[in-house]
Amino acid sequence: MKTDLEIATAAKLKPIQSIINGLDILDEEWEPYGKYKAKLSLGLLDRLNNEKDGNLILVTSINPTPAGEGKSTVTVGLGQALKQLGKKTAIALREPSLGPVMGLKGGATGGGYSQVVPMEEINLHFTGDIHAITATNNALAALIDNHIFQGNQAQIDPRQITWKRVVDLNDRALRQVVVGLGGVKQGVPREDGFNITVASEIMAILCLANSYQDLKARLSKIVVGYRVDSSPVTVADLGVEGVLAMLLRDALKPNLVQTIEGVPAFIHGGPFANIAHGCNSLLATRMAGKLADYVVTEAGFGADLGAEKFLNIKSRAGNLDPKAVVIVATTRALKMHGGVEQDKLTEENLAALNEGLSNLAKHIETIESFGLPYVVALNHFTTDTAAEIKVIEDWCQARNISLALTTVWADGGKGGIELANQVIQKIAEQKVNFQPLYPLTASIKEKIDTIAKRVYGASTVKYSALAEQQINEFSQHGWGDLPICMAKTQYSLSDQPDQLGRPTDFTITIRELRPSIGAGFIVALTGEMLTMPGLPKQPAALKMDIDATGEITGLF
Amino acid sequence: MKTDLEIATAAKLKPIQSIINGLDILDEEWEPYGKYKAKLSLGLLDRLNNEKDGNLILVTSINPTPAGEGKSTVTVGLGQALKQLGKKTAIALREPSLGPVMGLKGGATGGGYSQVVPMEEINLHFTGDIHAITATNNALAALIDNHIFQGNQAQIDPRQITWKRVVDLNDRALRQVVVGLGGVKQGVPREDGFNITVASEIMAILCLANSYQDLKARLSKIVVGYRVDSSPVTVADLGVEGVLAMLLRDALKPNLVQTIEGVPAFIHGGPFANIAHGCNSLLATRMAGKLADYVVTEAGFGADLGAEKFLNIKSRAGNLDPKAVVIVATTRALKMHGGVEQDKLTEENLAALNEGLSNLAKHIETIESFGLPYVVALNHFTTDTAAEIKVIEDWCQARNISLALTTVWADGGKGGIELANQVIQKIAEQKVNFQPLYPLTASIKEKIDTIAKRVYGASTVKYSALAEQQINEFSQHGWGDLPICMAKTQYSLSDQPDQLGRPTDFTITIRELRPSIGAGFIVALTGEMLTMPGLPKQPAALKMDIDATGEITGLF
Repeated sequence: MKTDLEIATAAKLKPIQSIINGLDILDEEWEPYGKYKAKLSLGLLDRLNNEKDGNLILVTSINPTPAGEGKSTVTVGLGQALKQLGKKTAIALREPSLGPVMGLKGGATGGGYSQVVPMEEINLHFTGDIHAITATNNALAALIDNHIFQGNQAQIDPRQITWKRVVDLNDRALRQVVVGLGGVKQGVPREDGFNITVASEIMAILCLANSYQDLKARLSKIVVGYRVDSSPVTVADLGVEGVLAMLLRDALKPNLVQTIEGVPAFIHGGPFANIAHGCNSLLATRMAGKLADYVVTEAGFGADLGAEKFLNIKSRAGNLDPKAVVIVATTRALKMHGGVEQDKLTEENLAALNEGLSNLAKHIETIESFGLPYVVALNHFTTDTAAEIKVIEDWCQARNISLALTTVWADGGKGGIELANQVIQKIAEQKVNFQPLYPLTASIKEKIDTIAKRVYGASTVKYSALAEQQINEFSQHGWGDLPICMAKTQYSLSDQPDQLGRPTDFTITIRELRPSIGAGFIVALTGEMLTMPGLPKQPAALKMDIDATGEITGLF
Repeated sequence: MKTDLEIATAAKLKPIQSIINGLDILDEEWEPYGKYKAKLSLGLLDRLNNEKDGNLILVTSINPTPAGEGKSTVTVGLGQALKQLGKKTAIALREPSLGPVMGLKGGATGGGYSQVVPMEEINLHFTGDIHAITATNNALAALIDNHIFQGNQAQIDPRQITWKRVVDLNDRALRQVVVGLGGVKQGVPREDGFNITVASEIMAILCLANSYQDLKARLSKIVVGYRVDSSPVTVADLGVEGVLAMLLRDALKPNLVQTIEGVPAFIHGGPFANIAHGCNSLLATRMAGKLADYVVTEAGFGADLGAEKFLNIKSRAGNLDPKAVVIVATTRALKMHGGVEQDKLTEENLAALNEGLSNLAKHIETIESFGLPYVVALNHFTTDTAAEIKVIEDWCQARNISLALTTVWADGGKGGIELANQVIQKIAEQKVNFQPLYPLTASIKEKIDTIAKRVYGASTVKYSALAEQQINEFSQHGWGDLPICMAKTQYSLSDQPDQLGRPTDFTITIRELRPSIGAGFIVALTGEMLTMPGLPKQPAALKMDIDATGEITGLF
């Protein structure tokens, strides 16, 4: 069997100019980055401001296995199928982070015959967005420490600096560090730590900003730490929002590439899906909507995290109007939710499969609660048996749920035609009553309760003493009207990764809150969230190489 | 008076395609990066391997003032003048580092009407090369710490890891840190530190590599630390040279832009000029030589550092054959060498000027000792008086030294015509006997002695006990045949920054050696070299901003 890299390398790409030519983009509105990548200027959105938006389709999934259920692959495949059906289509995805690429996870560019290309460039430095975010994040850190070193006019308490440095790598040795050592000429010693770049609030900001002005306004609101009297110190207090916005000038422009079948693909921004909202940039989604009649996009992890945040945070920030949701399921994940161990997921187990459908049922209810039409996509694996597929078909039929089997990995767009037809039909026939689950004016606790009970199915929410105190403080700081960004395990509907299926009668524990005031949300942590991954014993990096002509090998 | 940014922004740039069209570059040999930048593939050098090389002209200077003497501006201006005289010309410069841009120093793109453009892009993220080097450097660091964490098969002594992490920023708080804190799950606590990216050995390697194979071979030789028995641990021992080379695939391709008058400009690589060799990439210089009849390039700091290393290290690594040298001087720097204080350099002082010419005299002797023709360029400032210029003219005339007054900042190429004519004449008339100052087979001490005595004019060289011990160890490790990269203050010919003019009868003290085995040289440190700058009280960054359309302001 060919690897993803081999399939991607064998694909015949169109020059990016040719993709551009198929869209309503003026010459002065784009710039090439190599032969197959482009950046689009924000002026395009101003010009097309009054145009109708294309139909926005969100791809999400049930709670995944550690290997993932192929959500990106289904997103690409559905886009390709819509194109095959003659629809003017674009897709919008997150851009991959180098750390996971070099660790374990593999790329985030789809797979098989449903990939975005050039995959090796997208998975490595791409158009430099993430590097620009790293530099901007760390410039702010250097400016903070320099501010303190040069007299500390803003009176930041060095023990209460919350802004961390970042690298776009899995580097556990940087999780907890002490900086500023070496005496009076090197600064003020203090405890510090590094996150992976995609966990930077600047990544979340870039992905929620609507314009350069909005970008700068959001940057200025970042809380970098506190004074001794507990009052927050912001970027505006340091007066550096201008230079930070300047460093992000090109990074804010959405990137355009293509799928293996020539569908325009916006790949832009990639915030964490736990301590951030986990979707590609709002500007990319909006731009895709102005340029295509159907836009397929994706949110991180399962519907309890990614879709909830897409609908409550991102859609609200950008006035998005989603028209349908695709919920991806696999027999593997369903069997896992039915109690099967990781190493037995490829074996037929109809009882477990049937049991595990409870997880799908809950995510369906969640999407219904947002007032949105949906289709379940069963992403086919070669180990699926006919009996297994029938169990799922019967289950859906009994409940009048639209189901489509997709074989987009093996067959490209052709393998998504059934799904595309059902999605088109849903959009044409079913009335949309989309609304976020909570109003912003609700209290922080009301908002958290709504998500925990209506999306996760929890019976109660418990707050730690720290969380209680923070809720009071945050409300006093005037942050009470922001949406909530839940940080929870992706593996379970609950906050316990081993509670599979559809847990009931459980408690969600809010341990701590974190302000992401620039991004425009309050993060509620239900457990320890690792914002700096580590490398495994045999990192994927060890297999990567280039030959004498610069050709890449070993990248997936 | 217009700022450099205003002049650059007002300039009418040609599309990069049009610059490409003027050169012997095939369609498949270049890629656009935006509308005005390109990367050229290494295949171009293979195709043109048997073509004659253009005349290579090196621009260097006397020991500079802290503000610099306009060496980059003269390089650009001379290139523009050669073009005006009908010569097929290209220039080759280093790419700027973000840290100094945001600190004090200003950009490295020339000035006034002798700039490379688009200057704001070149000074910020450009084509991502430096970000790729940062990521590669830090990937190696993460792989080292992970190697130790996962069992330490190579038996690296955590107390003797010499490989440091980098950021492309001025961040003094990172000079000395402790990493790996937080318990057994976060790694092994150890002392560490960060350098600025341009001080990374990977930057030096990128700038001296001749091909992808050579890049990988050099990467594999990097010494990352030592075992308890003092034996060196290399990248090859960790088996990660492949992934590092892969991460540098695009960064190794030279960048092409243009000067404000449309001269093709290679801007590629920018290693430190103290702990590294301080010149743009060898590949860029070689490529420029295959595409133009005259190539003007620059080396960092004064002739004692930049030119010495260009001629002893870079030219040797790439078999370069320089044809002439331009030595830039200013009345300001000459007066400084004659004893005038920094705040009085704009006042006429003929006695000090005359006295300071001793510094120029020494650099002239150095260039002569390499067997190279030269022209002195007096880079004009508006505060220069006619009497001052006459002192310099008389001094040169008495010694039969070619002198040209340049006004390239104010007049662009027109202001460099006299210099260009003299350089053309030198190349046409004077026989070149270029040879490095020492053979590689000389001992480490013989090589250091040669540079200290013949280039700096020292009477003796002293070695610290540490340096003596290292010389023995390095020779035992088989590193004795590498060239020497001297790390010395740029302000004086000696190792004491306050010894201006032409010091005599002085001792150079070698405090420590550092192996840059991948880059292919031994660094000899004559003092504390700061490899991580700090920001000033009012960083230049505080003035930088963008407006609602993304236009940059306050960048110089």
